[in-house]
Amino acid sequence: MTISRADCVALDADDPLKHFRDEFVLPEKTIYLVGNSLGALPRAASTATARVVNEEWGGQLVGGWNTSGWYDLPLTTGDRLAPLIGAGPGQVVVGETTSIAIVKAVSAALGLRPERRVIISDLANFPTDRYVVEGLAKALGGYEIRDIGVLDDALSDDVACVLLSEVDYRTGARHDTAEVTARVQAAGALMIWDLCHSVGAFQVDVSRADFAVGCTYKYLNGGPGSPAFVYVHPRHQTTAEHLLTGWHGHAAPFAFEPGFRPAEGIRRFTVSTPHVLSFAPLNASLDIWERVDLGEVRAKSVALTSLFIDLVEESCAPYGLRLASPRDPERRGSQVSFSHPDGYPVMRALIDRGVHGDFRAPEILRFGFAPLYIGFADVYDAAATMAEVLQKELWRDERYQQRLAVT
Amino acid sequence: MTISRADCVALDADDPLKHFRDEFVLPEKTIYLVGNSLGALPRAASTATARVVNEEWGGQLVGGWNTSGWYDLPLTTGDRLAPLIGAGPGQVVVGETTSIAIVKAVSAALGLRPERRVIISDLANFPTDRYVVEGLAKALGGYEIRDIGVLDDALSDDVACVLLSEVDYRTGARHDTAEVTARVQAAGALMIWDLCHSVGAFQVDVSRADFAVGCTYKYLNGGPGSPAFVYVHPRHQTTAEHLLTGWHGHAAPFAFEPGFRPAEGIRRFTVSTPHVLSFAPLNASLDIWERVDLGEVRAKSVALTSLFIDLVEESCAPYGLRLASPRDPERRGSQVSFSHPDGYPVMRALIDRGVHGDFRAPEILRFGFAPLYIGFADVYDAAATMAEVLQKELWRDERYQQRLAVT
Repeated sequence: MTISRADCVALDADDPLKHFRDEFVLPEKTIYLVGNSLGALPRAASTATARVVNEEWGGQLVGGWNTSGWYDLPLTTGDRLAPLIGAGPGQVVVGETTSIAIVKAVSAALGLRPERRVIISDLANFPTDRYVVEGLAKALGGYEIRDIGVLDDALSDDVACVLLSEVDYRTGARHDTAEVTARVQAAGALMIWDLCHSVGAFQVDVSRADFAVGCTYKYLNGGPGSPAFVYVHPRHQTTAEHLLTGWHGHAAPFAFEPGFRPAEGIRRFTVSTPHVLSFAPLNASLDIWERVDLGEVRAKSVALTSLFIDLVEESCAPYGLRLASPRDPERRGSQVSFSHPDGYPVMRALIDRGVHGDFRAPEILRFGFAPLYIGFADVYDAAATMAEVLQKELWRDERYQQRLAVT
Repeated sequence: MTISRADCVALDADDPLKHFRDEFVLPEKTIYLVGNSLGALPRAASTATARVVNEEWGGQLVGGWNTSGWYDLPLTTGDRLAPLIGAGPGQVVVGETTSIAIVKAVSAALGLRPERRVIISDLANFPTDRYVVEGLAKALGGYEIRDIGVLDDALSDDVACVLLSEVDYRTGARHDTAEVTARVQAAGALMIWDLCHSVGAFQVDVSRADFAVGCTYKYLNGGPGSPAFVYVHPRHQTTAEHLLTGWHGHAAPFAFEPGFRPAEGIRRFTVSTPHVLSFAPLNASLDIWERVDLGEVRAKSVALTSLFIDLVEESCAPYGLRLASPRDPERRGSQVSFSHPDGYPVMRALIDRGVHGDFRAPEILRFGFAPLYIGFADVYDAAATMAEVLQKELWRDERYQQRLAVT
């Protein structure tokens, strides 16, 4: 190979982010390239969760809503997350799931464009984005969902909003958000970005978007099912109203008025009682992110993903593997995908040898590179394992053929 | 007083539920009568949460979705909760919040009665129930929300569904669910019960209801923001479709199909990635509930609430306090409410003396009695403190007059 393992070890020694690795719990003999699905456990998240359970809930009981700031967690956590996506204070709330966040953003966008009856989605969107829009359109009635195809052809003057993923969950392909947003807005439509595969992978810039949503359990390391977020541009905050009008979004939630009046500002995008325990590891993780230079994250991410592509192609090209991610790092998130007709057993053979990626039907092998805890030697070892699995056809072993229930 | 503190201590000694008290963390010098708002911390919940964080997330990483059953948590937890509300396996899913659960239940009910355009709600419903229905009706268009008033007058043949709380959050008044359900269904409408203030307070029977929703952080002790539940009667499970069509409710979530196809059965009422950490204490709490006799819970609840009413009225009647709960225990949940024109400072004076209830505008003092960890001596002491605060007018102290941000 053109680069040696010793070279990779040297790159790790020079890595300005190398000290973050020790802040995460990573199992022995595992190269964890699934941080784009579920981020690793920050050591501080374990302590923080125990503190919320034992000191806040156990010690303060219902008083925690005031004393420990539980009530405002969606807003305070949103303000802490905001810089990672290029937003300011009072522009982001954290809570519920990405699916619910999409309901908020899309229903608000439709309300702001009442005369327009088309929602543009994308086959490259993660399915839940499509399903949620479908359910909403069906319930509201009279809406057409149009797949994007060629953006300028799709952008007729009856388009209310466009929902796209900045980074494609299968291929890692990345949109030029500034350019797409400008074209969408020039057509009078509203732009909603799904940032699930962006936030924590590089510096996102939502400042021109109308709305954005995303999860916090991938590169942000907020833990399984940590709450999602919604960004709302300040220009919409006094007018946007969404469908999920729960009591925490009310102007006076403790006045117990009979009718709904939306709160001023971003608070109207909260719904109801936050899942307090699920905020604890996220806030511990945001403590880490406050010390991270996203420019260094992106530079390392580009280096890791480019190296992985080079090494895998060098050794595995003859074995039916094709690069499914953009070759240009500017057009790529922090993951690399390859397609292989037997992708499922190949991935199981890799996992069996300690290289953890994941599989997305019909034939995509995904590898996520979380720069806070993945290094160059990991990339080298993962590529070498891939070469061994393919060259020796280890994936043909029958125990790798049977599908597990959840993949 | 007609009963002495020694009598109460004797009642506690004979209490068949007394051993459960040691399973909860309760702060020193506190009589915690807010278990109807946020239940106390079960000791086992602390251990369970640490295990999910450190062993499952930290040890299994993304493998936890399979290995630790995270993916099925909404269903497995629902099956465990089901007996508490008189439901069977495959009839309950746990996830999100009560507000989101109401969106599911009401949107499903409206879909099952497409020709009917009236939703009956109640001023006695907790405000979020009203607000969520209002937001849904506004978004869908063409719906009338009717306040219940006299049920039979409200039940015209254009009523699609009726959403009522079994137990009133302010007064603790309890509906006769069997009778109300029968009348609603006789009118061709669907009955949706909000069980937030019922579940864990007594044996609920949803077997005749069409849908039910509720939270798990009150009497169930699931922790701050623990996930809510939805019950769907088996007769609706093949036809009911709700608005929040996320990928976990899809018939084949990992096939990543472009369009939504609802899963068979109750799974279609799941939405997306469960808040795994927020399920941990709830499941630890359900371990306790598996050992609890709900008949004993109800008998003790009736005894505690009746004793509290007797003692408070005996000593406090001349001081502007009026019982706001039904006097007949059959018509009461596990809370007692009194109204007082200066209810807010009275409650603050009580809390300052270790008796924790809460206040609901404009003048309701609420006291919840969680039979697993509240005893008869607690009731005696709480009533004695109330008498002291009122007789000596301790609540007039100016430090109790100023409103806290969240109450």
